Amino acid sequence: MLSITKTIIKTRQASIALQAATDKQIKKTLNDLAAALLQHSVAILRANAKDVAKQDAANPRTDRLLLTPARIKAISDSIKKVSRLPMPGGKSLDRRVLKNGLKLQRITTPLGVVAAIYESRPNVTYDIAALCLRSGNACLLKGSSEADNSNKAAIKIIKQVLTDNGLPADAVNLLPSARETVNHLFTATKYIDVIIPRGSNGLIEYVRKNSLVPVIETGAGVCHVYVHEAADLEMAANIVVNAKTSRPSVCNAMDTVIVDRSVAAEFLDILAPGLKEKGVIAYADKTAYAVLKNKLTVYKATAKHYATEFLSLHCAVKTVSGIEEALKHIQTYSTRHSEAIVTSDKKLAQQFLRTVDAAAVYHNASTRFTDGEEFGLGAEVGISTQKLHARGPFALEKLVTEKWIVEGRGQVR
Amino acid sequence: MLSITKTIIKTRQASIALQAATDKQIKKTLNDLAAALLQHSVAILRANAKDVAKQDAANPRTDRLLLTPARIKAISDSIKKVSRLPMPGGKSLDRRVLKNGLKLQRITTPLGVVAAIYESRPNVTYDIAALCLRSGNACLLKGSSEADNSNKAAIKIIKQVLTDNGLPADAVNLLPSARETVNHLFTATKYIDVIIPRGSNGLIEYVRKNSLVPVIETGAGVCHVYVHEAADLEMAANIVVNAKTSRPSVCNAMDTVIVDRSVAAEFLDILAPGLKEKGVIAYADKTAYAVLKNKLTVYKATAKHYATEFLSLHCAVKTVSGIEEALKHIQTYSTRHSEAIVTSDKKLAQQFLRTVDAAAVYHNASTRFTDGEEFGLGAEVGISTQKLHARGPFALEKLVTEKWIVEGRGQVR
Repeated sequence: MLSITKTIIKTRQASIALQAATDKQIKKTLNDLAAALLQHSVAILRANAKDVAKQDAANPRTDRLLLTPARIKAISDSIKKVSRLPMPGGKSLDRRVLKNGLKLQRITTPLGVVAAIYESRPNVTYDIAALCLRSGNACLLKGSSEADNSNKAAIKIIKQVLTDNGLPADAVNLLPSARETVNHLFTATKYIDVIIPRGSNGLIEYVRKNSLVPVIETGAGVCHVYVHEAADLEMAANIVVNAKTSRPSVCNAMDTVIVDRSVAAEFLDILAPGLKEKGVIAYADKTAYAVLKNKLTVYKATAKHYATEFLSLHCAVKTVSGIEEALKHIQTYSTRHSEAIVTSDKKLAQQFLRTVDAAAVYHNASTRFTDGEEFGLGAEVGISTQKLHARGPFALEKLVTEKWIVEGRGQVR
Repeated sequence: MLSITKTIIKTRQASIALQAATDKQIKKTLNDLAAALLQHSVAILRANAKDVAKQDAANPRTDRLLLTPARIKAISDSIKKVSRLPMPGGKSLDRRVLKNGLKLQRITTPLGVVAAIYESRPNVTYDIAALCLRSGNACLLKGSSEADNSNKAAIKIIKQVLTDNGLPADAVNLLPSARETVNHLFTATKYIDVIIPRGSNGLIEYVRKNSLVPVIETGAGVCHVYVHEAADLEMAANIVVNAKTSRPSVCNAMDTVIVDRSVAAEFLDILAPGLKEKGVIAYADKTAYAVLKNKLTVYKATAKHYATEFLSLHCAVKTVSGIEEALKHIQTYSTRHSEAIVTSDKKLAQQFLRTVDAAAVYHNASTRFTDGEEFGLGAEVGISTQKLHARGPFALEKLVTEKWIVEGRGQVR
């Protein structure tokens, strides 16, 4: 696997050359890439068809792998959007003159080399490449073997556009999809600045466990909506149904609804039809089970259910004596992604927003809004569930590091 | 080692209670701690004497372990200084109203629990505790067994002051100094938000390799001063002598001086007496060796020397054909800590400052300035040599994470 090490080093060298690229050059490159996607859509679809043919059509994963003319158009549009975002590097964060006359500046600069490890969606290849180029970073892409043909078609187009625009072709490299590839990334601390795993918990755990290169984790969300006794119960039911069912397979979907026991019967009566209509299956504690049993498919909940990110139309239901118990439940099971309270008690809402330790905390709104585009940050690499560097939507603005520039006239200490 | 896990969990709980502390309360706690150090200095010195008695007095490490009345005064003053720094949490970074009416705020909040793993200096216990309290974080401290008695005396005083001020005593906990303690920290991803290793490269490597909790690396600096042919050679010699000799044991000290071959003989002639006077021993390439051999203790340099952080009065000397070769040498051997150029060519200086990938880059100044206090940021946890979250002096302002607060009126997606 000497060739992988070589590719990693070439990508590092390209990242240095990339620093000399002008803003205009990068904008044009991204626009050209957006156009090239449409122009080469037949070749892209043909490569993708080879990948899809190997899969079981009935498996929902196959749909994630599939490209269509409409999906290619959407990727192309998204690249155009990224091209219009401002370069996050070169921003002055701080500027001061010290007593000894030293002139200090703290500026943002590209990270250097970003490595992404992801699963079958072929759009990720284009998305990460576009975000990295826009922020002046070179990138190493490691997709899954299922998308091999699609990714190879993508990288061919990307490299051609880079070359046509006078940028180093090695600024974006696709690595072999074989699993052992990742081990070469994990030890390349001299050449790679950050590794971003996108996908299942298993993948993220594996990367966290084995990488010596700093990792930004994106993903897993065990998210709660807490319905307080002073909530507008219609609003609460509407929020819970939306948070659970509008897109159950994503990380900001609700997993557990928590409700004050004093309003549990009334609230669950209002909630049940909405969940039933969408085909939701619930795991409820004793109190909630008694209310729900004739209104919904419902099973008894165990601790395991409360710790589960369902990514499906399943959810857990928990009744509590009040906010203290609700906060304790969230503290125990939350993965610190997105947490919501529904209440008309403003003081209590503030307590919740202040106390809950999560990337995004909501009052009277659905957890489904945790997203770079929704928050107005533009396309995102993922939702970070850790606390360092980037928390919540991990967008362009965080694909940079800082650097202190110190200018003197011979000062010594 | 069940007790360690219990201590970790109690520290997490204390971190939640700590959020309720007022700014005034924390300020007073730190001032009381500063006073308590002076008040209990006899007990502190007595405990420290037990630690020192076990060591070889001739070993320079013993001096690092030693406390004196003057050193206790300095620690006390430093705590007072930290008490006056502003709380970095609760700052609004962003505030916007989305089209759908959602009110968005991004604020800074304490990280939660910070774990520090460090070596023999007993002041670190007080420093980290003070910085963590000031930023609203609880902390877990793991010192070395050499400083066991000193650290136990410290934690006793700290806990008493916390309790007297109505803060949870578990907000600062000292862990057993046995090496296996750290393994309990590495897997506590649910309870610890960041681990900061302070000390030798070996320690930092070990933590990076084994921790599942995110790590901020501080430390290792292979730092260069590049003397360009258009430099004021007297200024350059003054900077090199200062960068190498003013405190050779620290990470921002210079390791290699690089000089353009066109001025190498002239420059090294000026430089040699200054280095010789301080007892510097050099490892030089062929060209530099020929100039230095009768003026200084000098040996032939190998690649190993260029990759060494000396932390002593040794240094390497390299001659180059010009800036391109200098940049290439730095790119190969730098640990991205602090890098300097000395030149009167402003355009070339800008190229160096822009191109060199390091936490701090200097023009016409000594690398020794890379320090939180010097940069006006206040006391620091260490100098971060990685690119995520904190880069360069890792001070109070970076002991926070972010949180999105979203307030709605029932919005769903």
